[in-house]
Amino acid sequence: MSATTIKLLKTPTQAAWVEQALANLDTVLLDHSHCERKAAGVAVNLMFRYPSNAPLVRQLTAIAQEELAHFEQVNQWLDRRGIPLAPLKAAPYGARLSGQIRRHEPERLLDSLLVAALIEARSHERLGLLGDHCPEPELAAFFRSLRASEARHYGIYWLLADRECDRLALWHRLDELAAVEADILDTLHPEPRVHS
Amino acid sequence: MSATTIKLLKTPTQAAWVEQALANLDTVLLDHSHCERKAAGVAVNLMFRYPSNAPLVRQLTAIAQEELAHFEQVNQWLDRRGIPLAPLKAAPYGARLSGQIRRHEPERLLDSLLVAALIEARSHERLGLLGDHCPEPELAAFFRSLRASEARHYGIYWLLADRECDRLALWHRLDELAAVEADILDTLHPEPRVHS
Ligand SMILES: [Fe+2]
Ligand SMILES: [Fe+2]
Ligand SMILES: [Fe+2]
Ligand SMILES: [Fe+2]
Repeated sequence: MSATTIKLLKTPTQAAWVEQALANLDTVLLDHSHCERKAAGVAVNLMFRYPSNAPLVRQLTAIAQEELAHFEQVNQWLDRRGIPLAPLKAAPYGARLSGQIRRHEPERLLDSLLVAALIEARSHERLGLLGDHCPEPELAAFFRSLRASEARHYGIYWLLADRECDRLALWHRLDELAAVEADILDTLHPEPRVHS
Repeated sequence: MSATTIKLLKTPTQAAWVEQALANLDTVLLDHSHCERKAAGVAVNLMFRYPSNAPLVRQLTAIAQEELAHFEQVNQWLDRRGIPLAPLKAAPYGARLSGQIRRHEPERLLDSLLVAALIEARSHERLGLLGDHCPEPELAAFFRSLRASEARHYGIYWLLADRECDRLALWHRLDELAAVEADILDTLHPEPRVHS
């Protein structure tokens, strides 16, 4: 199975999220900037935690560079729209998912990679929704341009996780984590966020 | 005064360091890889600590991207020479310098930027020495190619520090930190390192 055709998510995004996001595009863009910075941070942190795992380090370096490029691009959109780089209270999504990461190795690495894969997969799905439904054509095109990278990222995280344990254990753990991810999104967070 | 002509360091590197480095090029290259990863980490950490400081975030994003590119390039050299990405005990340099960073804002930001500027300035000087004296022409050329970026980096950290306080306080604090930096390098670390 190729990295780009794997299906990680258990549930599609609800229509209510799309409505909420389109009604609050500026807030979603600001949150998106924070998400890209955090995505770069996740990759860099893993590079520091497993500095001698050469295949992991190589892929994470490439992901970190791309996330930083996305971060710059989103920030240029914020600039154009006059949105300052203000802090934004995070939705519970990230903390609840990361809370699932087990503390001991090798489970910690496996879970970290699967959680990153799920977050990237959800970003991919939602950037696609924004790309399809955003009424501003140029901004919609921007969302679509990021969408492809996020698909690559979740594929890479998935393939890295695949190196860490046997296939059956991998699918089993993915199933558990994807259920948590779907459960978190089941209740639409009242504040508009990329992952809410 | 332009960012590229400022002189931050108090003392030049001793000849003994150059001899030690050239006699242990593989170890220095491995340490260099760790240095580039850490340099990217410093920039990313500051982006996380001051996420709403737009001019700071913009410059740090560019630095982080360049350090990740350097990291990749050094790792390609390791690959070519068959050096695995092994852990390497750090010299006391980094921890001793970072130990000078005061805990409270705004001093913390100022000191973080000045310490980063000093480390980049020393990298710049030493990459120049390796570029001038390394007996392998291709590797020497690689060191010289990085040298210019590190000059830009220390210039940027210096200019960012310059925004944080008045010029006199800035020079005063630089003087203190540069004295510590020179003092650390006064005793050649027995293990060959980029900053030893
Ligand atoms: Fe991204
Ligand atoms: Fe991504
Ligand atoms: Fe560098
Ligand atoms: Fe640098």
